[in-house]
Amino acid sequence: MSIRILITGGTFDKEYNELDGKLYFKDTHLPEMLALGRYDVDVSVRTLMMVDSLDMTDDDRNLIVAQCARTKEEQIVITHGTDTMEVTARALGAAVKNKTIVLTGAMVPYKFGSSDGLFNLGSALAFVQTLPHGVYIAMNGRCFAWNNVRKNRKTGKFEELR
Amino acid sequence: MSIRILITGGTFDKEYNELDGKLYFKDTHLPEMLALGRYDVDVSVRTLMMVDSLDMTDDDRNLIVAQCARTKEEQIVITHGTDTMEVTARALGAAVKNKTIVLTGAMVPYKFGSSDGLFNLGSALAFVQTLPHGVYIAMNGRCFAWNNVRKNRKTGKFEELR
Amino acid sequence: MSIRILITGGTFDKEYNELDGKLYFKDTHLPEMLALGRYDVDVSVRTLMMVDSLDMTDDDRNLIVAQCARTKEEQIVITHGTDTMEVTARALGAAVKNKTIVLTGAMVPYKFGSSDGLFNLGSALAFVQTLPHGVYIAMNGRCFAWNNVRKNRKTGKFEELR
Amino acid sequence: MSIRILITGGTFDKEYNELDGKLYFKDTHLPEMLALGRYDVDVSVRTLMMVDSLDMTDDDRNLIVAQCARTKEEQIVITHGTDTMEVTARALGAAVKNKTIVLTGAMVPYKFGSSDGLFNLGSALAFVQTLPHGVYIAMNGRCFAWNNVRKNRKTGKFEELR
Repeated sequence: MSIRILITGGTFDKEYNELDGKLYFKDTHLPEMLALGRYDVDVSVRTLMMVDSLDMTDDDRNLIVAQCARTKEEQIVITHGTDTMEVTARALGAAVKNKTIVLTGAMVPYKFGSSDGLFNLGSALAFVQTLPHGVYIAMNGRCFAWNNVRKNRKTGKFEELR
Repeated sequence: MSIRILITGGTFDKEYNELDGKLYFKDTHLPEMLALGRYDVDVSVRTLMMVDSLDMTDDDRNLIVAQCARTKEEQIVITHGTDTMEVTARALGAAVKNKTIVLTGAMVPYKFGSSDGLFNLGSALAFVQTLPHGVYIAMNGRCFAWNNVRKNRKTGKFEELR
Repeated sequence: MSIRILITGGTFDKEYNELDGKLYFKDTHLPEMLALGRYDVDVSVRTLMMVDSLDMTDDDRNLIVAQCARTKEEQIVITHGTDTMEVTARALGAAVKNKTIVLTGAMVPYKFGSSDGLFNLGSALAFVQTLPHGVYIAMNGRCFAWNNVRKNRKTGKFEELR
Repeated sequence: MSIRILITGGTFDKEYNELDGKLYFKDTHLPEMLALGRYDVDVSVRTLMMVDSLDMTDDDRNLIVAQCARTKEEQIVITHGTDTMEVTARALGAAVKNKTIVLTGAMVPYKFGSSDGLFNLGSALAFVQTLPHGVYIAMNGRCFAWNNVRKNRKTGKFEELR
């Protein structure tokens, strides 16, 4: 069994630029996080883009959908900014049927020391191994179906629509 | 849905005593780790013991089995030292049939900054929500059945018996 | 001997707001940092303001100068944003003669895990105990006189004017 | 101006062996700590030994004294276990007269995330630049003369003899 991990950026991978005090993207921290977790499953990591999910375009989402449709692995984890994670989940849910796809992200950058990223990654990799085909969001230790989830902007937590 | 978390100690919860340079147990870090993961599922945490799993006795294991049998929740996560995790898993696997029980632990104490504990906790809480009744060990991003797992002492990783 | 620590904000004390992804000020981390350093000297900490030093006004600087002039302690450490630290040092150098004042700060917020803040605080508290009356900037393990220092914007390091 | 840093081990540089759960020495973390502090002074780091200071022998101390006597730099920082730091300080104080030597250490290993090491290193490097010739211990933000200091075993803090 092999798992494909697709990187799209998001808070997960943001870093602090000490010269201008702004957040930016450099490289993904996924390999470092997998090593920290002593991960021992066959994975292949591919960076599709490094963007804030508020800046993600339709073209970006089409690329993610195309990659998921094309990849040979049946189990896919996507790291993604939380702000529009539900939008990408819906695009994937409508288009990709024969795979298990789990989107996850973080509320605090992994490099900032108090991140939920490592916890979320652990849960996403477990959910993707055990859930039937479908598209899901793994956040807050929970797993949501792509067509029944939204981020609550006030609490920062994900919840079901109904 | 509610999940029961049972604490037994292990590397997970060890701390450094700066006066004598030795490792010891104080309180569990589970609530702090759940908060860091922005965990949003109903859980109840109970500390059964705080021991190095090399020091765990038959009485200790009987207590764990009894607690798992008695607890009303059907989904149980147990934090446990890795050295004898497989022994406790076998005791549980032989005795408790109608629940999903996932044991997990860490190779490095949570407080030491480079721990796999948060990753493992995330994966254990995901596995316990999705797997059928049975007893499992969640380590290294993988999930093992209670009767087909051992810790490889040389690599520190868990593997199947056959 | 007693040391006065005056807080003005700066990168030192910035935090990450996980709801909007922006940096902001809440409370100072100085007491936590002193505890981490097992600091055992009599200090009194006072927060004067919590501002980015790019937003510091003449009024703010007048307040800092007045506080330094008035305080009974002869040794004063000021935490300050690095961007205009040299401006405040000049204001103090021209006005306060009979005290040892050391300004320090950080290039990365203390809460982000990879901060130089703890190192700088340790050096500032050592310099203030050993240097003669005067106004100094302690950054990068060095100590600069108030009238011979600037921040190099390209490298982020402090250097002498000549 | 150049500063010599001599490494002798101590809690400072201890690491956690995840296979046997014991603490051990691998390489010194000094270069990493200097980088984290954005240190910008000319230093040369030399590892003399990597030992727990409880295991330090007279031969070890003679080596440290000989190295301090021979080195061309007038300013020397020594990282050292805290348990016998005062013994080495006395050996140096009796033997080396024309240099400024500052011993420092940590109560918690640097790699454990909650260490006082970075704070102590910052203060030691500041004290060594500003104090007159002599031998000192820099701990807890304070500086002690070699012939008037002991570690209080109950509190873990350093204090004057009288």
